[in-house]
Amino acid sequence: MLFRQLFDEATWTYTYLIADPDTKEAILVDPVAEQVERDLRILKELGLTLRYCLETHIHADHVTGTGKLRDATGCLGIVPANAQATCADRFIQDGEVLQMGSIQIEAIATLGHTDSHMAYLVNGTHLLTGDSLFIRGCGRTDFQSGNAGAMYDAITQRLFTLPDETLVYPGHDYKGETVSTIGEEKQWNPRFVGQTRESFVDLMANLNLPNPKKIMEAVPANQECGKVAIAAR
Amino acid sequence: MLFRQLFDEATWTYTYLIADPDTKEAILVDPVAEQVERDLRILKELGLTLRYCLETHIHADHVTGTGKLRDATGCLGIVPANAQATCADRFIQDGEVLQMGSIQIEAIATLGHTDSHMAYLVNGTHLLTGDSLFIRGCGRTDFQSGNAGAMYDAITQRLFTLPDETLVYPGHDYKGETVSTIGEEKQWNPRFVGQTRESFVDLMANLNLPNPKKIMEAVPANQECGKVAIAAR
Repeated sequence: MLFRQLFDEATWTYTYLIADPDTKEAILVDPVAEQVERDLRILKELGLTLRYCLETHIHADHVTGTGKLRDATGCLGIVPANAQATCADRFIQDGEVLQMGSIQIEAIATLGHTDSHMAYLVNGTHLLTGDSLFIRGCGRTDFQSGNAGAMYDAITQRLFTLPDETLVYPGHDYKGETVSTIGEEKQWNPRFVGQTRESFVDLMANLNLPNPKKIMEAVPANQECGKVAIAAR
Repeated sequence: MLFRQLFDEATWTYTYLIADPDTKEAILVDPVAEQVERDLRILKELGLTLRYCLETHIHADHVTGTGKLRDATGCLGIVPANAQATCADRFIQDGEVLQMGSIQIEAIATLGHTDSHMAYLVNGTHLLTGDSLFIRGCGRTDFQSGNAGAMYDAITQRLFTLPDETLVYPGHDYKGETVSTIGEEKQWNPRFVGQTRESFVDLMANLNLPNPKKIMEAVPANQECGKVAIAAR
């Protein structure tokens, strides 16, 4: 498969472009509004047809590119089941497999950062974790219906049970790393190594992080697939 | 092989970690001084022994991590033939192959950005281009013995003659892209598509870019493998 990691510097967001090199069908996971022109250029240059924009969750730190990309390409916008996004063309359920040519994307419910969040396992090898598992970290759980206990359960019971060699591609990384593996995270992730569910919940309750700068704009915009932000420009 | 792309946000530099998963020997290409602690942590967590720090060239935009890494691990610092770096443990020649376990790294002289610059072809598939070929761009040629004609020759005659599917991993990318291929660059790179050697030289002479912020510090520091910068801290 064609697999590309793309980076948005303003929000440190990783977007993933996945395509079947034979059918030329493509999917973008967690596209960013400010990068839509770049993403459209890459699709065009690679001769790809965008079929889907897929969200891991309703983001609070950036506005999704889905609305603009849908307008430009006619692709479908897919969000996790139970997400408050009436604009979505389709909702994806835990365990559901999205098939696109030779590409298989399995949704794995990983609640905790928000109350509707999916990780996506691509062709059994590449795990896109969104804001659940990060490289040596995890997404925060202190706003937007976050729940630290649910995060602990999802990561330890759903993700850490995947094969050790599964590649971990997060939604963000703040130290300049790009990829890890399940085996590495089980061995070295300080949020989980030596933590019980209880101590993890306690740790997450005391991070005292500032709110994301864009939260007041991003959440309502993303519930409309990025449309609100576009209208305001 | 183990292959990891690492990012330094301050200078937009990509560092590459390459290792033989069996012998656990590792090499870092273009490490950055400010990221040495991160890089040492990753090496430790992955159980790797750093054998070499390899530079594509003497950088003007960041200070190399080689000096610190050599002090910490006893690795060897390798720089391109003719580079003004008396601190180097070893110089690598055009066409020379560095063998480390199952990893083969072939040096390809790609002058132009500086007068001593190598691209490195790893296991015949992954091409680390340093500041020669970028994704839809190329390194600048207007300081540090840069030579636009040499850049044009190196890229069109040495790199664009590699197989189309060769993966291109640059030393920097300023649009959030992480990888490309030789085929893509031959087809879409605006610095080369439709350009003659003459028009390319003219184009490069008229970019009017500001000097890198760190040039006065970085070049002399890198001629000492990063030692000067360390002493000044």
